[in-house]
Order: sequence, then C-alpha cells, then structure tokens
Amino acid sequence: MNHDEWVRQELRGLSQSLGFQYTPIKEIENRITKIRGRVEKREIEGLLVVEKMNFYYLSGTTQDGLLFIPLEGKPLLMVKRELERAKLESPIKNIVALKSIREIPTLIQTHCGKLPNSLGLELDVLPVKDYFKYQEFFPNAKFVDVSPILRETRKIKSPFEIDLMRKAGEIGKKVYREAKKILKKGMTEIEFGGLLEAIAKKYGHEGLLRVRSLNYEAYTWHVLSGITGGIVSQSDSPMGGLGLSPAFPVGASRKKMRGHEPILVDFGTCFHGYQADETRMFSIGKMRQKFIDAYKACEEIHATLLEETRSGTDCEAIFLKTLRQAEKLGYKDSYLGPPGLQTRFIAHGIGLELNELPFIAQGQSYPLEEGMTFAVEPKIVFPGEGSVGLENTVVVTKKGYEILTPVEQEIFQV
Amino acid sequence: MNHDEWVRQELRGLSQSLGFQYTPIKEIENRITKIRGRVEKREIEGLLVVEKMNFYYLSGTTQDGLLFIPLEGKPLLMVKRELERAKLESPIKNIVALKSIREIPTLIQTHCGKLPNSLGLELDVLPVKDYFKYQEFFPNAKFVDVSPILRETRKIKSPFEIDLMRKAGEIGKKVYREAKKILKKGMTEIEFGGLLEAIAKKYGHEGLLRVRSLNYEAYTWHVLSGITGGIVSQSDSPMGGLGLSPAFPVGASRKKMRGHEPILVDFGTCFHGYQADETRMFSIGKMRQKFIDAYKACEEIHATLLEETRSGTDCEAIFLKTLRQAEKLGYKDSYLGPPGLQTRFIAHGIGLELNELPFIAQGQSYPLEEGMTFAVEPKIVFPGEGSVGLENTVVVTKKGYEILTPVEQEIFQV
Repeated sequence: MNHDEWVRQELRGLSQSLGFQYTPIKEIENRITKIRGRVEKREIEGLLVVEKMNFYYLSGTTQDGLLFIPLEGKPLLMVKRELERAKLESPIKNIVALKSIREIPTLIQTHCGKLPNSLGLELDVLPVKDYFKYQEFFPNAKFVDVSPILRETRKIKSPFEIDLMRKAGEIGKKVYREAKKILKKGMTEIEFGGLLEAIAKKYGHEGLLRVRSLNYEAYTWHVLSGITGGIVSQSDSPMGGLGLSPAFPVGASRKKMRGHEPILVDFGTCFHGYQADETRMFSIGKMRQKFIDAYKACEEIHATLLEETRSGTDCEAIFLKTLRQAEKLGYKDSYLGPPGLQTRFIAHGIGLELNELPFIAQGQSYPLEEGMTFAVEPKIVFPGEGSVGLENTVVVTKKGYEILTPVEQEIFQV
Repeated sequence: MNHDEWVRQELRGLSQSLGFQYTPIKEIENRITKIRGRVEKREIEGLLVVEKMNFYYLSGTTQDGLLFIPLEGKPLLMVKRELERAKLESPIKNIVALKSIREIPTLIQTHCGKLPNSLGLELDVLPVKDYFKYQEFFPNAKFVDVSPILRETRKIKSPFEIDLMRKAGEIGKKVYREAKKILKKGMTEIEFGGLLEAIAKKYGHEGLLRVRSLNYEAYTWHVLSGITGGIVSQSDSPMGGLGLSPAFPVGASRKKMRGHEPILVDFGTCFHGYQADETRMFSIGKMRQKFIDAYKACEEIHATLLEETRSGTDCEAIFLKTLRQAEKLGYKDSYLGPPGLQTRFIAHGIGLELNELPFIAQGQSYPLEEGMTFAVEPKIVFPGEGSVGLENTVVVTKKGYEILTPVEQEIFQV
C-alpha cells in the first residue's frame, strides 16, 4: 500500500477515534495576528520559526519542519518529515516539502515573493551552527531575536489552551488518587515514581515535560522521601533530591521509603503538549509534627498567593509578600531551600513549556493578566531531614483564578 | 542543619549505598588528554564545555556549570549549582563557585593565568544568545567549533563506559522478560509502554534518553501494533507510530493491541547516563506469516551486519551490503520504511546520546574501530498493515563484536 495515500485516507479517522484534537484555524490565525502586531513595532519583515514548541503553537503540528511567517501574506510551512501528516495536522494553507534546508531561501522566494531584509529568529535556543547557515541563506538580512515576542504572546493562554491544561490536570487527579493505593513501606522512590508515570500514561499523559533550555531537563519522577527531600541539586528548585547517578542527580532515588517520613510527590502531566504541574505530600503512618506544621505553613502561603491572584497584581510584590509571611511563620531559613541555596521564585509560568512567563519571583515586576497560567509551589526544606510542599497550576481569570489541578489538597496518609 | 556540611559528611556514603558510581580520575584524565591531542592540531588555546553530556564526559558531574580546559595547565570547573555535590562527583581538582556567568572571564584569568586568544565552543548546540555573550566576555578571542573533536573522542568507548552500557543492557533484559507476563489483548499501546518503563525504572533505568539536537526528542515508549507500525512520522526512523496527539505524534498510541498483530517494542534504557537500545517483536497469538517472514529477513540482515562487525570494515560498505541483501530477500520497497520515506541508516552510534558516531549509513565512509558502540536495527514496514524489526546494541571488540543487549532474540508470543 502507498503510505501517503493511506495517510490521506485513513489517518484522520484513526487519530480522532484515538483522541487526537487538532488546533482550529481560528486559534492559529489569532496567534499569528498577535505576533504580527508585536513584530511590526520592531521592524522585522518575517519570522523563521524553528523551535518545536513555538512551531507547534503557530502551525498545529510537530512534524519536522520550519515555519516562515512574513509580516504580510500567507505563512509558509516547510516540512522535512512527514509531509502528509503535517497537512493533516496543520490548518496552515501553504504547506510544502523541504528536501534539504538549502532549499529554504528558494521556497520563501517562490511562495512569498521575496526574501526578507530583516528576519526574526529564536536566538535564545537556535544553535550557532544553524545561525551561520541562515546568514549564508539570507546574505543581506539583518537578524533579530524574536523569542521575547513569542514568549510574550504565549504568556496569555486562550480558552482552547486552558481547556487542554485542564485535561492535563484531570490526569494528575487520577494519578494522585491511585498513588494512595500503590504506596507501600519499603518501596523505593523510583519504583513508586515509575508506577505513577505508568498510571499517568494510561490516562493520556504524554511523558515528556518540555522546558526551554539547552541543558535543563524536566521529568515526572520527583519523589523525595525523608533525607533525600533535604538535598539540593543542579535544578533551580528548592530541593533536587538524590537521583539515580551522577548523570541524573535529581528526583527519585533507590532509597526505600520508610514509615513517618514526609514523602513529596511533585508530578507533572502533559496533554496535547500542555502541562499541569502539582505537588502533594504522602506519608506511611503519620509524619512528624515538625513536617505537618511546615506543610500547614505552605498551605497558608499558597492561600495568600491565591488571594492576590487577579488581573493587575504585581508579580514581584506577591513574591515578596510570601517571603515576609514565611519569615513571620518561622521559616526564614527553610522557605524555598536552605540558606545560601534558596530559590527566588514561588511560581513559574507553564503551558507548552515548564519555564514560561510569568514568574512570580524576585526582579519580575509586571502585572498578572487574565489568561496567564502558572504553577505556585511553596516548599520548605530541612537538610538532613526532609522537605514538604504544595503545588497547584492556576489560570488568572476575570475575577480571580481557577485551579487547573483538581486533586484534593491534603496530606495523603496511608 | 547546614546543607553543605551535610553534603560533605553524609552524601557520599548515602549515594554509594544507593548504587552511585563515580567516574575515576584516570578516565577523566585520559579523555582530556585525547581531546588535547586532537585540539593541538587545530590551534585552540582552550575549550569551554557547556553541553550537559560533554560536560559529564569530561568532569564526571552533571551539576549546573561550565568546564574550561586550557591546552596547558589544570582544567577549571565553574559550578553554578550545586557546588558541594559537584566537588563530590567530579575528580577535577580545581572546582570553584560561579555566582553569575559574568564571572567566567575573571575566574579563568585568576585560575588559569590568562584569557585564551582562541576558544573552542560547541557550536552545533550552543544557543546564539550565549555565543554573543562569550564574544563579549572574550573580546579578542577567535571562536572555533570543537563539537567535531568532542564527538570523535566520545566515539571510542573505554572499558569503564562499556561496562555501564552493559548494565543498561541488563536492565533491558529484565524489561523484556517481564513484558511477556504483562502483555494482554485489549491493552493500549501506551499502557503497555508505561508499564515497561515502570519496570525499567525499578531496575535502575534513568528515564531520559538524551539526544544531541535542538528539536529531536527520544522516548522509551515506542510500542507499535498492527497499523500504527506502518505510520511514518517526524522522526528519522523507518516508522514513527501514531503517538498520542499532534504535540507528540510518535511512539505508542491509545490503540488497543489485538490478537495476531505484529507488536514492535523498541525500548531504550539508561544507566549512569549510558544507553542501550533494543527492539523485539511480540504477538498475542501467532502473527501472520507475512510478518514472520519479514522478521526472519531482519534476522538475516542483522546477522550479515554482525559478520562484518570488526575493526577496519567501512561503515557505508556495510550499509550498502544490507541494502542489496534486503532487495534480494524481496523487501526493496519496505526495508527501512516505505518508498520515498526510507531512512538511510541501519545502525546509529550510541552512548551518552542516541545519535553519536558511528553511523552505518549512506555517505558515512569510515572504518569501524575497537570500542565503537552502536545500535543495529533492521526494520521492515508495510503501510496500513504493520512493521517488524530487531535491534541490538553492540561494541566493536579486537576480534569482532560483543552484544550489550542480552535478551533472547526471538518473537515473544503470548
């Protein structure tokens, strides 16, 4: 059978019957219109979008390719592999095959009329080697970093996007509920983490948590119990955990979980590329009062932050308020990490990537806006002993906020 | 308790009791010596190593930092987070804190005596924005891409590295053996894939399969059954599968596995950063003769390739030989993918990343050498029907080869 024929005839039906949702054309058009609105002020004639999540956001597909968006005229989707699937997934009209990246200038010239004299690229992630190639392909063009524009645009989520995040949150709810039944004394952190991931996958979790960075890696198996919860590692997180080896020194380890320890489960889920991030505490038998008290402090800080969550509040001001509250509650030296290693954010923007705007953090002075989504995660760390925390993903609404991670907010004691 | 004190006193014991192996100083010294030997010919005064896997290879740690290797004198490890863990994990002598990347030139000047006039960087992955920063930090330096040198060095594995890959292979063996007990009619591909991953994690698999690329993503849940095995996607693979959504259009899907279908399980495992990659076929009840015959052809091609595997054989010549063999066996239009979409490699180098040298592929004319490791994966694809394949990870030895993925080479019928 011919592969392309089969894809054209059968794949849409099969995909939809198995839960695929395609990005509507209106979504893509709105996004491109917003980008263009921001671009015009910076005098760029077109953008060449390469990075997978920007590419998905603006085309609806993650097939291997590049998207050229001229400031005027139709966007051009150039696809290396696989063309027929890209045509099925993307509502972009102009979709062409790209046999070699050397064809990029010719394809743009042919389909868009001319080569841009100034071109926007994603310079925060684009490798230097590729940049040199584009300099060769567009010898007369000036290059501008358009990542700030793309990040600003992606910062405000549409109802379509929020709905996908809500679905990711529903998967998380199922994971935490089943987790209670699985957790057993003597099980290793990584065994527990692996089983939670298997449950999440069964309910549609996509496995990879994307993050915009050369070296930063996200993962779901952040299960820390007792002492491993008190260990800081390479990640910009209050506690990194022990991990499995020097090659992966974060998250769950081979340590066995014991009775009465605080067990922190920070678990991210992903649905159609959109993530929800949450943390709940578990214990086998009652955990020590010190940790219960610290968890209650996290709940109070979490509540304060949500009280401030509405359009217009300044992000840095919220962060500083939680800092003062933690101090007043007696956690100055354990809030967000041990002294000298404390992180400087209480919430991170989330969507297609784990490190989106906004950051509710020191030095991030800008207002919350309707449609922003972020994960708020107050955490308290005691080196040599353990850590506690609470995390939910929320969206800023007209009147306040909505929580997208609907699992019960309690300590799961088994 | 003070975090750093705790790390200095307790962490080594805890880590080693939970299976951590540290890279010996001799390994690191040998690697740096090899790099320097190659660098000298290209007239660079030093290398600044940033990318996580190169950084791990040359320092023994994956804490967040950068490694400066002058052509003469001691390497300097600059650590952003977490310094005490880096000191524990890395045998490098000169390890210093890096508060801000602006300190890089001062630290190099102070600890290495002078700033380099020519600096090697990893231009195939380094983001443009970082490159501009280095131009500012080293205003008089000429920059050279050292990725080819690093890739060439990492191409030949030491006995220490091969042993870690062997351990990754042992994890895979356990996964496939338990897989037989789990597989059931009506289970979805992704549910099966998730459970296999949970088993792998229990036995020490690190979860992330690293790949050197901006956009290419690796994952373990490549479970394709019947028709989904006939679908090509964005990955440079004979078959991509359906996946879970347009945001993740590869690998296992929500399709239920049926009786008599070919079920392809391509599963990678990772131990201390080192990967092993393998593929085996499963079926619930006997699979159709057409697929059994095609699988036998894959076995024959696999055997031919291994017969040629010894120091000195040309990689491209091996690839072309398998191509002729596939044609002779009647699989010209299905070997390595459907017509027009066939991949042009039969084996990929593997180690810390999934796309290392060597490639046994078209256009890759260079000899095999002792210590090279690669995953050989003959696969046959029938669009609309399914696919079959076999994959093992091997190391080239003095006399021939050793298979690092010891699971039985058979169709697992349940």
